Amino acid sequence: MRIGIVAPSSRFSEEAAKRVRRIAAGMDAGIDLHFHPQCFLTHNHFAGSDADRAAALVETANDPAFDAIWFARGGYGACRVAEDALALLTPAARDKAWLGYSDAGYLLAGLYRAGFPNVAHGPMPQDAMRDGGEAAVARALSWLVDGDPAALEGGLAAGKRHAAFNMTVLSQLLGTALEPDLTGHVLLLEEIDEYMYRIDRTMFHLTSNASIRRVAGIRLGRCNKIPDNDPPFGEDEEEVVRMWCGRAGIPWLGRADIGHDSANKLVPFGLS
Amino acid sequence: MRIGIVAPSSRFSEEAAKRVRRIAAGMDAGIDLHFHPQCFLTHNHFAGSDADRAAALVETANDPAFDAIWFARGGYGACRVAEDALALLTPAARDKAWLGYSDAGYLLAGLYRAGFPNVAHGPMPQDAMRDGGEAAVARALSWLVDGDPAALEGGLAAGKRHAAFNMTVLSQLLGTALEPDLTGHVLLLEEIDEYMYRIDRTMFHLTSNASIRRVAGIRLGRCNKIPDNDPPFGEDEEEVVRMWCGRAGIPWLGRADIGHDSANKLVPFGLS
Repeated sequence: MRIGIVAPSSRFSEEAAKRVRRIAAGMDAGIDLHFHPQCFLTHNHFAGSDADRAAALVETANDPAFDAIWFARGGYGACRVAEDALALLTPAARDKAWLGYSDAGYLLAGLYRAGFPNVAHGPMPQDAMRDGGEAAVARALSWLVDGDPAALEGGLAAGKRHAAFNMTVLSQLLGTALEPDLTGHVLLLEEIDEYMYRIDRTMFHLTSNASIRRVAGIRLGRCNKIPDNDPPFGEDEEEVVRMWCGRAGIPWLGRADIGHDSANKLVPFGLS
Repeated sequence: MRIGIVAPSSRFSEEAAKRVRRIAAGMDAGIDLHFHPQCFLTHNHFAGSDADRAAALVETANDPAFDAIWFARGGYGACRVAEDALALLTPAARDKAWLGYSDAGYLLAGLYRAGFPNVAHGPMPQDAMRDGGEAAVARALSWLVDGDPAALEGGLAAGKRHAAFNMTVLSQLLGTALEPDLTGHVLLLEEIDEYMYRIDRTMFHLTSNASIRRVAGIRLGRCNKIPDNDPPFGEDEEEVVRMWCGRAGIPWLGRADIGHDSANKLVPFGLS
């Protein structure tokens, strides 16, 4: 299993790469990790310039020597390269497994829209830096190596289609060339570092769009590190999501085991 | 000139109302301000519950005794009441002038979409609390009273259509029942309190939507109080907006004299 790692978003570190290599070696599963040198570039907010990040993604994705593409981390920046890079992908890229979450959601969305069959929302190399992050990285690797069902989010229903996103990322790609058709999908959402009023606003945006109103239902993952609202918002994230689902006529399907944390489980896009 | 003031978003204060009354009295222009009692309600983040805010808006808008509706302040909350409240407006509401900005943009958008002929982006009563805010409030009142051309943004071109929004608010109403058709409009945008990476992300979202690609061009108002990006973003707001306009094929038309500050000029929606 040869896994190519690229960083289309924020800066990545040698320290995180070292931890991931150690975790992979400990699994004794024949994992060959290739961190593209672009992962360690820095350009302002990003892991290299837009051109460097796009080029590394295209080069690695189109290389038939790799079985999978793993996004190194989130943060911000994938939307600046996604559309141009995805337009350059060849059939060799389509055959691969693709894994990431958070800001990588722009790429997952565009890949799924383009019909790539093996796209999943789940842990990334940067998660090795979290408390307990070794488990998250091992979970991701076990899915990449052999599709380990224990790595999957526990509520995925056989015969149903699923997709998972950071709610802000999904909001910010609605109406763009990256937006996939989520009709009939169970949509899993998670969030981090956003005030309750912003979570509320994002849910207004999502559930007020006709394309999102066609989902089969919404399940809410964890909303971590919500800063204190001033004044107190008076409604928590579950109340807010249930309220907006109710107004929009979208079925509320309960909670989901995803989030910006080491417990984050995998959600393959499409049919389970 | 009888002006009805309602607060569809965040909490408002008696102190701000007092300052606005004093400014209006000093103008000696026959201004009769009516702060609806709802302005002084509090419910969590908001100036009263969703039901209270919607009811005050509908009651005041449909009352033929008022010539204008002025939104008390922004913050957050208008998207929770806009669609339901606007559905209840009668012809008496359509004849009025409507003024606000920031979070009130959800309402301006929905009103303009519904064909209301006299909708403008400009200062609100809460601006009385700013340094130099008296000038902003007087500017708004002078436009409400007699359409004073000195109150208008200086670059509005005769025979062109315009619209103005906080960029986050516009992003969060794209694809919803509030989004107006901005085809052929010069679009003025402003922002406050957002990191550069968020301004960049919002501009990706706006300029990647087909509906926004139909505008005649974009003019950038002030982006105030941008928090320090970590690491430094390396591009300022003008570079970011120009870059996204370039990628999207949207004409960049320069800067605009609007923003979350006391210099904020008025932009009537539609033909100048």
